[in-house]
Amino acid sequence: MKKFMGNNFLLKNETAKVLYHKYASQIPIIDYHCHVSPKEIAENKSYSNITELWLGGGDHYKWRAMRFCGIDEGLITGNASDYDKFRAYAAIMPKLIGNPLYHWSHLELKRYFGYDGILKEETCDEVWGLCNEKLAQPGMTVHNIIKNSNVELLCTTDDPADSLVWHMQIAQDDLFDVKVLPAFKPDKGIICDRKGYGAYIKKLSEASGIEIDNVDTLKDAYIKRLDFFAANGCCTADHSVDNYVPFKLYNNIDGIFKKALESDGGNISEDESDIFRTHMMIFFAGEYKKRSWVMQYHFGVLRNSNTAIFNKLGPDTGHDIISGQPSISQLAKLLNHLDKQNSLPKTILYSINPVDNAGIGALCGAFQPQLRHGSAWWFNDNYDGMREQMKQLANLSAFGNFLGMLTDSRSFISYTRHEYFRRILCDIIGDLVEDGLYPCDMEYLPQLVMDICYNNTKKFFEF
Amino acid sequence: MKKFMGNNFLLKNETAKVLYHKYASQIPIIDYHCHVSPKEIAENKSYSNITELWLGGGDHYKWRAMRFCGIDEGLITGNASDYDKFRAYAAIMPKLIGNPLYHWSHLELKRYFGYDGILKEETCDEVWGLCNEKLAQPGMTVHNIIKNSNVELLCTTDDPADSLVWHMQIAQDDLFDVKVLPAFKPDKGIICDRKGYGAYIKKLSEASGIEIDNVDTLKDAYIKRLDFFAANGCCTADHSVDNYVPFKLYNNIDGIFKKALESDGGNISEDESDIFRTHMMIFFAGEYKKRSWVMQYHFGVLRNSNTAIFNKLGPDTGHDIISGQPSISQLAKLLNHLDKQNSLPKTILYSINPVDNAGIGALCGAFQPQLRHGSAWWFNDNYDGMREQMKQLANLSAFGNFLGMLTDSRSFISYTRHEYFRRILCDIIGDLVEDGLYPCDMEYLPQLVMDICYNNTKKFFEF
Amino acid sequence: MKKFMGNNFLLKNETAKVLYHKYASQIPIIDYHCHVSPKEIAENKSYSNITELWLGGGDHYKWRAMRFCGIDEGLITGNASDYDKFRAYAAIMPKLIGNPLYHWSHLELKRYFGYDGILKEETCDEVWGLCNEKLAQPGMTVHNIIKNSNVELLCTTDDPADSLVWHMQIAQDDLFDVKVLPAFKPDKGIICDRKGYGAYIKKLSEASGIEIDNVDTLKDAYIKRLDFFAANGCCTADHSVDNYVPFKLYNNIDGIFKKALESDGGNISEDESDIFRTHMMIFFAGEYKKRSWVMQYHFGVLRNSNTAIFNKLGPDTGHDIISGQPSISQLAKLLNHLDKQNSLPKTILYSINPVDNAGIGALCGAFQPQLRHGSAWWFNDNYDGMREQMKQLANLSAFGNFLGMLTDSRSFISYTRHEYFRRILCDIIGDLVEDGLYPCDMEYLPQLVMDICYNNTKKFFEF
Repeated sequence: MKKFMGNNFLLKNETAKVLYHKYASQIPIIDYHCHVSPKEIAENKSYSNITELWLGGGDHYKWRAMRFCGIDEGLITGNASDYDKFRAYAAIMPKLIGNPLYHWSHLELKRYFGYDGILKEETCDEVWGLCNEKLAQPGMTVHNIIKNSNVELLCTTDDPADSLVWHMQIAQDDLFDVKVLPAFKPDKGIICDRKGYGAYIKKLSEASGIEIDNVDTLKDAYIKRLDFFAANGCCTADHSVDNYVPFKLYNNIDGIFKKALESDGGNISEDESDIFRTHMMIFFAGEYKKRSWVMQYHFGVLRNSNTAIFNKLGPDTGHDIISGQPSISQLAKLLNHLDKQNSLPKTILYSINPVDNAGIGALCGAFQPQLRHGSAWWFNDNYDGMREQMKQLANLSAFGNFLGMLTDSRSFISYTRHEYFRRILCDIIGDLVEDGLYPCDMEYLPQLVMDICYNNTKKFFEF
Repeated sequence: MKKFMGNNFLLKNETAKVLYHKYASQIPIIDYHCHVSPKEIAENKSYSNITELWLGGGDHYKWRAMRFCGIDEGLITGNASDYDKFRAYAAIMPKLIGNPLYHWSHLELKRYFGYDGILKEETCDEVWGLCNEKLAQPGMTVHNIIKNSNVELLCTTDDPADSLVWHMQIAQDDLFDVKVLPAFKPDKGIICDRKGYGAYIKKLSEASGIEIDNVDTLKDAYIKRLDFFAANGCCTADHSVDNYVPFKLYNNIDGIFKKALESDGGNISEDESDIFRTHMMIFFAGEYKKRSWVMQYHFGVLRNSNTAIFNKLGPDTGHDIISGQPSISQLAKLLNHLDKQNSLPKTILYSINPVDNAGIGALCGAFQPQLRHGSAWWFNDNYDGMREQMKQLANLSAFGNFLGMLTDSRSFISYTRHEYFRRILCDIIGDLVEDGLYPCDMEYLPQLVMDICYNNTKKFFEF
Repeated sequence: MKKFMGNNFLLKNETAKVLYHKYASQIPIIDYHCHVSPKEIAENKSYSNITELWLGGGDHYKWRAMRFCGIDEGLITGNASDYDKFRAYAAIMPKLIGNPLYHWSHLELKRYFGYDGILKEETCDEVWGLCNEKLAQPGMTVHNIIKNSNVELLCTTDDPADSLVWHMQIAQDDLFDVKVLPAFKPDKGIICDRKGYGAYIKKLSEASGIEIDNVDTLKDAYIKRLDFFAANGCCTADHSVDNYVPFKLYNNIDGIFKKALESDGGNISEDESDIFRTHMMIFFAGEYKKRSWVMQYHFGVLRNSNTAIFNKLGPDTGHDIISGQPSISQLAKLLNHLDKQNSLPKTILYSINPVDNAGIGALCGAFQPQLRHGSAWWFNDNYDGMREQMKQLANLSAFGNFLGMLTDSRSFISYTRHEYFRRILCDIIGDLVEDGLYPCDMEYLPQLVMDICYNNTKKFFEF
């Protein structure tokens, strides 16, 4: 029996162990897509307790798990004390057998707090004390956490109307030499059938200094923001392509846009919304292409599926789900449309639905060298899902060119997810070699690991 | 090489063996969803031969397998002798390598008949003789089979118009102390575009004593039947949500209902049928919620896909298939609609299509504490399908709260499917522990097994 | 650690080894679906170098892989020298870890060229020299390759307008005794919304000697060609059912057909195309049924997804992808329609999308004895995909009746794909036996292997 989370955690054979310990574990991290707060980096935030770090920052994975165990919402997002919230989470841990949270939580306790035991209700106080003590030390400020995690570069996710003031401040901080770049996330201006659309466009107008009263001026405003982001080091954009991928071409975009403004998003049909989404996605893609940016499409999510909770707690609380709608055909049409007019940028495709793995793999082959199959995303970012994504990617494309892992996290101690990924990666490679499915070429294999963990990303994004 | 179906069948490692033999194998069975006949329980039926038990009772799994092997329909559902039918099934057994029937059949022969050999044409006579001899003994009446299978409680599936006379008789039988509860299955009144709809509503009218001439009186009739079922111990309802999950809200329900009655289901469009289905499903959910019942949705089935056979043999003969239609988005909208008006009952979701596993897992998280991901259902109820469902459930929710197995069977000797499930369950847990993916916590693990096999169900259904 | 591609490549246990080496490896090949050129067989083509054999013949798998690695199109389909093309392919080989090309390429080098090393840039010249030397020898003409591969029979894929002149020539060649049969592939006449439709119908008219000016005369022409193909030994037809399976019944077929002719495919709506497709598929199925042919449906492909490349390179260059559209319900309706009028022929179903495996498995059960779940097809024809297809087939039908492998290849040295398949097949069976999931019945297991690799196909096709 292997020790739980021992030194060779997730590594089943000798080749895997050598590849991980000698190579993968040493490679710096480029976290090219995450949701940490640039303000917290700029301010070099520190934490008063483990709950603030673990449960306060919008970790909807943990919130979901707690709800599955019948924990009262007060102990999740409510007014309960930080200690009680932590205790509630500790108490459900044993039930999370087989869930990635079980591994991630213990990996974080081990790497950041030196805790080698098992978190459960009985050890709750011990862990609470240990973590909070460590958090009070200077080694656990955001700057030190990031540096000690061997992070070389990270990209946050930022609204086009954002001033990027925190990014500027980070860039000027000589004591913190990790590269922190913004990523451009224009969803709010693309999805015109949501309440608050008018207010958002007003905000964008102010940020850009351009009066927006039709689609042309909207685009002018965006172009100014794209240039501004580029000037601040941005080289990637993220799109949340909700529910399904739209592809409806139509001419009277101004009519839809004006209606959306007038009704504040309230009077827009699904059809109009799709037409507007298509139009704007085509516009943005062209702009990214001009700037040699990497476009990231995260698709297939049904957002805010629980209206009652949305009205109470707002978005991103763990109530976004897999839509289950077919996306590949529409996506192929959209990408082909872009390609025909030579405006298909470098693009990474991620689906929330694991059934899209093969479809993405095949699609990528039709638009080279632009398309890449992104790492196992949300709802797939577990042991089985990561293996499945990597196997499908290897079967359908060239594994040696895979872009590897990103945290997609809101937390500063999620960098252990790179460790998790790298162990699984080395284990997959090790299996192929030990089973006689690939030669034991110890000249190339370390290179392969280095490419997937670091080089391919650096080259693709031109970091 | 492991002995076929030996003592450690399906158990790969020591942890799994301990968990199964010491704990899982001892736990009583709560079979909360099956299709056995309450009449046969009440009458304490006995069987004249193994064909009557195995092939006569509507076991469409075996029928399908025989058809795949080119067996003439006369030897399946036709007029051939019981011996010839059994011989035909025995003869195809070797070809069923990798099929769950191969395991289930041998498990049943072993546990109920003490047969330790291999069923094939050569052993057909030996098995035929042995089984029929055993079946003639008093230990093999329905009551004894159920009791000796360690069944504590079972739920049959019953039409709202059913008199429940057999359930009453079972409840009054002091010599048979297994709890046998009805489950409410109102599909016939919900799907209004099938021939015979008018006749069915008439039957319901008679059973309820309410004259049904519009949707209000239809509901009144159902409410009387719901109360009647509740008075007879019912606490769960089962819906066969065929093809795809409908979600179409519309007001003029009476118009559709009357048209369905007048045309006996013949003149209803797909759109009207969806509207009516949606309306009635919302009505029933609210009623279940009031009564704290558990609602079970089995979705994604294309019923009676072969018209020629349906006209000859009727429904449930092995010609229902996976529809392949996307269901999750519509399902999410329906559940959200119920939740908003506070009428979402405790609900278990099962899809016939394994590709829905991740979608269900994600969806469940958005409506807690009501939703649960049901055990691997039909067309997934095999070794790979069960593993897949459990892994996905563990990845996306809290495995410790899983409701575990049900037979969904029409046969009284299918309780070995619980053994099959429990062995796989212990094997999965054992793998996690032995591979260092979960600590070897022998205080919690037996509890986990007990929870999944028994406690969680008892608590959720309030049995 | 197992040697890469050693004697027991893909065989994990003793049962698998015995089954493969003693039985599977000895069985002749019936390659019932492939795309090799009958002209090249008739002419007993030989090859001047390995590039001509490997990269010239339309192997879009290799082309795709090269594009994924950023190789310039000139080195793929362009004007670069054969040596440079080969070098480019050799150089990307290491990156194809986990890709079936890595195995297929090395298997081909080993079996046909006796090369036991690893292909990469460093060994490129060695392999180039060795292969080209072998190719210059008489053992490497098409006839000898086929005979030495233990091929007993193969079916090419042929347009109904084809003269079958090469097939006739092959049949008359007494020195070449492998049976080479045509297969009927009528897609060009069925899909009426593609440019060039009019020209194609003209060609068909000439081939059949029937003036085609409406659907009746179109059918007359096809019937003549069907009879002509049958007279030349044809007993199977292949349909590429693109994108999704259509099922739209409608009467005015002549109107659509005439519009398609007049506009040369340019003026046909998606709806009209579906109606015409449905009509013609029903017609053809009935004709196959009359002739006891096997109909093969390959569905779910989005063809020519990249318009720019299509305009440059034409079809079949590696830009066809998985459409991701649901197909099972429509397919079920079409097959049911055929079955009701007693015109459902023997049919094999293949989907390009692995998510359809369970749906196909279930569907096949509803139309026995006609339907079979075809071998893991394109985009699934890799180690994981083949295992998955076989496991699902075994779970949902009778593995003993599986029709086994076909190459689907355009190359004469792809017969090693049968070896690849047979090793995986034996490994799956071996696993079941060694794990105690099936008895070690060494009387039946060799029979099972023989059935899946040879007998079942021979019987089903009536070869």
